[in-house]
Amino acid sequence: MFDLRPVGYVTGLLVAALGATMLLPMAVDLYYRNGHWAVFLESAILSGVTGALTAVACANGVKQRLSIQQTFLLTTGVWLMLPVFGAIPFVLAEPNATVTDAFFEAMSGLTTTGSTVFDQLETLPEGILVWRSMLQWFGGVGIIVVAMVFLPELRVGGMQIFRSESFDTDGKVLPRAAQIAARISVIYFGLTAVCYVAYIAVGMPSFHAVNHALTTIATGGFSTFDASFGAFQGPAEYIAALFMAIASLPFVRYVQLLAGSSGPLLRDPQVRGFLWILLTLYAVVCLYQTGNAVPFETALRETVFNVTSILTGTGYASTDYQLWGPFPIVLFFFIGLIGGCAGSTSCSIKVFRYQLLIASIRSQIGKIHSPHGVFTPRYDGRPVGEDVLSSVMVFFVAFIVSMGVISVLLGATGLDTVTSISGAAAALANIGPGLGPMIGPAGNFAGLSDTAKWILAAAMLLGRLEIMAVFAILTVNFWRV
Amino acid sequence: MFDLRPVGYVTGLLVAALGATMLLPMAVDLYYRNGHWAVFLESAILSGVTGALTAVACANGVKQRLSIQQTFLLTTGVWLMLPVFGAIPFVLAEPNATVTDAFFEAMSGLTTTGSTVFDQLETLPEGILVWRSMLQWFGGVGIIVVAMVFLPELRVGGMQIFRSESFDTDGKVLPRAAQIAARISVIYFGLTAVCYVAYIAVGMPSFHAVNHALTTIATGGFSTFDASFGAFQGPAEYIAALFMAIASLPFVRYVQLLAGSSGPLLRDPQVRGFLWILLTLYAVVCLYQTGNAVPFETALRETVFNVTSILTGTGYASTDYQLWGPFPIVLFFFIGLIGGCAGSTSCSIKVFRYQLLIASIRSQIGKIHSPHGVFTPRYDGRPVGEDVLSSVMVFFVAFIVSMGVISVLLGATGLDTVTSISGAAAALANIGPGLGPMIGPAGNFAGLSDTAKWILAAAMLLGRLEIMAVFAILTVNFWRV
Repeated sequence: MFDLRPVGYVTGLLVAALGATMLLPMAVDLYYRNGHWAVFLESAILSGVTGALTAVACANGVKQRLSIQQTFLLTTGVWLMLPVFGAIPFVLAEPNATVTDAFFEAMSGLTTTGSTVFDQLETLPEGILVWRSMLQWFGGVGIIVVAMVFLPELRVGGMQIFRSESFDTDGKVLPRAAQIAARISVIYFGLTAVCYVAYIAVGMPSFHAVNHALTTIATGGFSTFDASFGAFQGPAEYIAALFMAIASLPFVRYVQLLAGSSGPLLRDPQVRGFLWILLTLYAVVCLYQTGNAVPFETALRETVFNVTSILTGTGYASTDYQLWGPFPIVLFFFIGLIGGCAGSTSCSIKVFRYQLLIASIRSQIGKIHSPHGVFTPRYDGRPVGEDVLSSVMVFFVAFIVSMGVISVLLGATGLDTVTSISGAAAALANIGPGLGPMIGPAGNFAGLSDTAKWILAAAMLLGRLEIMAVFAILTVNFWRV
Repeated sequence: MFDLRPVGYVTGLLVAALGATMLLPMAVDLYYRNGHWAVFLESAILSGVTGALTAVACANGVKQRLSIQQTFLLTTGVWLMLPVFGAIPFVLAEPNATVTDAFFEAMSGLTTTGSTVFDQLETLPEGILVWRSMLQWFGGVGIIVVAMVFLPELRVGGMQIFRSESFDTDGKVLPRAAQIAARISVIYFGLTAVCYVAYIAVGMPSFHAVNHALTTIATGGFSTFDASFGAFQGPAEYIAALFMAIASLPFVRYVQLLAGSSGPLLRDPQVRGFLWILLTLYAVVCLYQTGNAVPFETALRETVFNVTSILTGTGYASTDYQLWGPFPIVLFFFIGLIGGCAGSTSCSIKVFRYQLLIASIRSQIGKIHSPHGVFTPRYDGRPVGEDVLSSVMVFFVAFIVSMGVISVLLGATGLDTVTSISGAAAALANIGPGLGPMIGPAGNFAGLSDTAKWILAAAMLLGRLEIMAVFAILTVNFWRV
């Protein structure tokens, strides 16, 4: 058995840090005089003390280098423990949620999924609403760091293709992670601030602008209204779409942009692919909607907003697009399985994987034509190694098979076909809303059974950590080393 | 441009042969005095003459060896031309179907899908019913030959793993195909005869026993009743399940069994995997149904029949299993994507691919744990080449992506979510019925638009020829050689 102390140390530190951030919603609660400030203080102390004690207890086991096993366990461990502590305020404060609901909401937040089990959001204390949004915001920046440092190091889901960009960490993932986090955080914070100002500029009230800025940049999708973004139809939808799209591009490109070089951003095949998909979808759906006699301005605005929201896995809805007719519903189901770029806050299978999968299919067809020919799939002009391609394909298979298994499990809890399958997809791809009257854009997840909520929470974790990172620690061999 | 004459020659011969077999339904029609015998004769002459003339015109281009291009084109060409000629009687005789409906029905037959656009089957002339069943029967034996000779040769979808079994053809696919077809046909005919006798033994009327024997062994699923197998509830369901399962095992094993060696059949990992899946599903669904207060005998019988029918892609239904509750519906959707064994009449992704995919995932997890370790996936105890694995994964990706595209296209024709997605799956996996009130086990495909029918017919062809074989000829490079 390997040394668990480095895992405990980092997880403990992060739990303590999460505790410290609970003082912010406490301040919000005091400002709005909702009388829940003590709950946030309690939660902060509980998290802070538990986290700090764990970190101290594990401190003398910490080295510069982490083994592969430790790195894996750390990734999943953090994403499992933060929701546990992040859920405390939901249990103790006003929604007085059950443990299941609170954990579901916190997991949905930290994985930037955006499915909610709370209804009548308008009536919840402001502190709780801010806390939900903050969980998504932390989850967003957290996943960028994981995608830039941990997953390439762990060679999960073909993410090793981005290894050269984040430089070889030689096992020193922690110093590297801290360094990346620092650089990214500036950009992440800056984008959130700009998004907030833009929302204010189009008339969104300040409190809602803060919350939506936090969850837009995280491509999270938690809103402060049951009607989601329906409360802000109009120019705010374009602003949201712009920032959701920005948050779905690789953040490493923004680092380079700040360093004065815009080339990498403009030439990135992921970026080009993503924007191309986005624009095509705008055109198709907008055309369809104008064909349905929807006035052009409405059609364009609703299309731009909702297509971007689903493609990026944000999961806001500004209207019940299920009423648009059968075509957009089926389309939205499948575009949710595309997602944004790797190294962003967005989720799902991601554009670069589809690009590599298509390259594989093309090279396979080439090989079929000429069995003795050499057909090397290329990405960004460079040949792609066999191990990257097979990682990507294994990821895809694992994703689809997991979706099947989760759908069947949800069906076994008594949910109908559309709810089961779209719920599995929405959780695994961290989108948020599913389809159907229950969990669709006009509903929420409150009515599901506890069993279904736990299954979905597990699916969110699985999807957010690119599946294989979680599978890896579920094998016996992992623990034998 | 390569020489098309060998393709024309073989396709012509097969069309002529199909024409000759139309004399059988003609005889049936004469026997039942339905007055359509002339239609079958006309169709026979039309097919026979067109086929023969084509073959003669191309005869002097025929060589022992076919190029890869010729082999590909032959495979798809045959499966495209036979439905064209097979459809003629449906247009000229009693259902007086439109060209779309007739082509859909013939394609559904020859691909052993079993979706039907005809309703009130009970009122159709016997000759037409027999012709539908015969199309499935031909399609079944045809696909076994393709799976044993053509696909391994073409290295499509990982089928090259079965190359050693069918011996290296060294490009001489035609003599090899004729030889295999002869051996298989005896077994195929024998099994059909035994199945017929068994149906008779449990009291099925002779005419229906013939039709159902033909479509059972083909795992096709065309019935002579709108209620499908619902007309024969009772012991006949067990017999059908047994023969559907038998028809889903690799036919090469029966050749070996007849030669006196039962070992290959019993040790085949595909066979073991298939039976294990089947028995697990029986247990789970039967337990669920008895939990629903269904009497044990009914639960067992209906479970055994309907699970086998969907898993093997036959597509009979003996009851509307959509009324069983949400769990079986979701489950049936996904088990339809499993299928039977390669080298059988059954369809879909197939058991050996899942076995190889799971082996890939395991080896990937091993590599993730120990980046410098060597983890070679094995199948049947032997290491599996990288090219086989990547073929299988590319097939899986192509299958799922095709399913997504076809679902969206069906959605664009105005079909609802469940009909679109389940229709795409049912056509691509050659199952037959989809889900929902329209195309579910209690409905049929008559009510779809013509566009939807053409999309589905194309999907059946794509699925039956393992996708990549069709994709391959759709590329520009294919035609450049």
